[in-house]
Amino acid sequence: MAWKTAIMGATGAVGTEFLTILEQRNFPLASLKLLASSRSAGRKLNFKGEQLVVEELTEKSFKGVELVLASAGGSISKKYAPIAVAEGAVVVDNTSAYRMDPAVPLVVPEVNPQDIQLHKGIIANPNCSTIIMNVPVWPLHQANPIRRIVMSTYQAVSGIGAAAMADLAEATRAALEGREYQQKVIKFPAAFNVWSHDSGIAEDGYNVEEQKALNETRKIFHCPSLRIPATCIRVPVMRAHSESINIEFTNPMTPAQVRAILGKAPGVKIVDDRARNYFPMPRDATGQDDVLVGRIRQDVSQDGGRGIDLFIAGDQIRKGAALNAVQIAELL
Amino acid sequence: MAWKTAIMGATGAVGTEFLTILEQRNFPLASLKLLASSRSAGRKLNFKGEQLVVEELTEKSFKGVELVLASAGGSISKKYAPIAVAEGAVVVDNTSAYRMDPAVPLVVPEVNPQDIQLHKGIIANPNCSTIIMNVPVWPLHQANPIRRIVMSTYQAVSGIGAAAMADLAEATRAALEGREYQQKVIKFPAAFNVWSHDSGIAEDGYNVEEQKALNETRKIFHCPSLRIPATCIRVPVMRAHSESINIEFTNPMTPAQVRAILGKAPGVKIVDDRARNYFPMPRDATGQDDVLVGRIRQDVSQDGGRGIDLFIAGDQIRKGAALNAVQIAELL
Repeated sequence: MAWKTAIMGATGAVGTEFLTILEQRNFPLASLKLLASSRSAGRKLNFKGEQLVVEELTEKSFKGVELVLASAGGSISKKYAPIAVAEGAVVVDNTSAYRMDPAVPLVVPEVNPQDIQLHKGIIANPNCSTIIMNVPVWPLHQANPIRRIVMSTYQAVSGIGAAAMADLAEATRAALEGREYQQKVIKFPAAFNVWSHDSGIAEDGYNVEEQKALNETRKIFHCPSLRIPATCIRVPVMRAHSESINIEFTNPMTPAQVRAILGKAPGVKIVDDRARNYFPMPRDATGQDDVLVGRIRQDVSQDGGRGIDLFIAGDQIRKGAALNAVQIAELL
Repeated sequence: MAWKTAIMGATGAVGTEFLTILEQRNFPLASLKLLASSRSAGRKLNFKGEQLVVEELTEKSFKGVELVLASAGGSISKKYAPIAVAEGAVVVDNTSAYRMDPAVPLVVPEVNPQDIQLHKGIIANPNCSTIIMNVPVWPLHQANPIRRIVMSTYQAVSGIGAAAMADLAEATRAALEGREYQQKVIKFPAAFNVWSHDSGIAEDGYNVEEQKALNETRKIFHCPSLRIPATCIRVPVMRAHSESINIEFTNPMTPAQVRAILGKAPGVKIVDDRARNYFPMPRDATGQDDVLVGRIRQDVSQDGGRGIDLFIAGDQIRKGAALNAVQIAELL
């Protein structure tokens, strides 16, 4: 079986990664349509040695399309996903538009592949920092139910979009040369700086990214009692997010048990070389399918040996977005 | 009263900051001697419009010296601090050499100034990431005893030394130009990357920096039951450390109470503008005496309203080292 496929938002950071992953995984395509705003229409993108021309996204774009990989922003998905579904397509949506819709499955293939069957045309792809945390944490949760995760992130600018990577490069170049530079998309000084994730802040003080970590993980894990106080922070890294993760389990858990479980967990690679002080780094995670996991320690501050600390890194655009969506499509 | 003062390690990152702070605060100096290794002897450093010549540190350097500000490395302090004390000087030591020595007070002036009186010639200055956390956390601990702090750091490369800042700049320049560059002092790829603090790892998996956060804070707070699982991470920032801090109090604590307490706490500046999404950033903390505190939230994952989240940033070289030491000297 091969799919008549369309990529919505083909020219963005995730859109171009869709092309890379479809090619690398030799995804069964009957045809491939690249859709973007009128601004990008006419641009050419390489795919398997050919040049594909980007078409303008319109309400008529989905005729005959069977699979849509969407990453053009929440409002675009809100408008066009129902049109694509009406035309008979399945939409794997990488935006936040449908994630918390009870009628839409929210899927990390390593965690809840069975939820895909429940779809009514749309399957949501979780938020990047949530996916990267979920992949190593889920097998631990299955072995020993997790009560609480204190999570602090070190998020790359690629999450803001492709233009943010150029913005960080230019801002850094200017800082090194002592020049002024007006950033185009990153709202806070990016060069050699760290800043709080600039999503909206709710009344309780948590930002939208932090709320996603909690609410999406509860939905994906089918565990509404899970507690996750998150602090989401941007760092001057191009791509791949890192996360400091402190876990409270229900029962005792040792680092040796964590290593044994994660050693055979899908999508996880243990990088935990204490002698060389070599642990997960976003630079090593970039371009990798696996989430890197290290700094595996017993958190002795928790009573009864129920605490574990981890530090992880995963490619935000790849496993955090495009790869996860293509994996969902492969399972369809 | 004016002090005959010597700076040990005058040409390092903290050493040159000592000069800046002594000048800015108009510290009462009877004389000022700059000491460093033979390699740096003869170099000239500016102080109050004059050029002071760096002298080679020898066993005879301390004759007539009343105050030594030391920041030349632990082994140098181990060797020379007792010599200086024998000559009648008081040594404020910025290295880790004496911090956990029960006979040596370990002091953050905003926290335990009274401990200075107990000194027998040496007063230890705590580790940088510990000081920056202690300043805002102590007044909260006084109001409502803290049981546990889950702490993840975003530490600048300046903690590795002055050469590390040049190393980060060169590595970043090379990365932007697509060139190879052999880093001189930073052990992991620094450009657009994040890496675990490269201090030694103990058998329990915690590195030395993380152990300092726990052990030094317990000593400074006189609270041996305090629990602090820390994860110490380096980010590509020149100077000023940031920290994500999740606190468990003994009794209920609201964000409004935290704001009221920190609003009048010495050495703290609240930067917590939710409407503008403006929170502590290392770039803003650089060159500041105060530790910036924001992202003040109730951590609802803790029962009984006993949880608070914070994000803080403080100048690692200034309050994290040189300023704290000079403040100790001012209290003498």
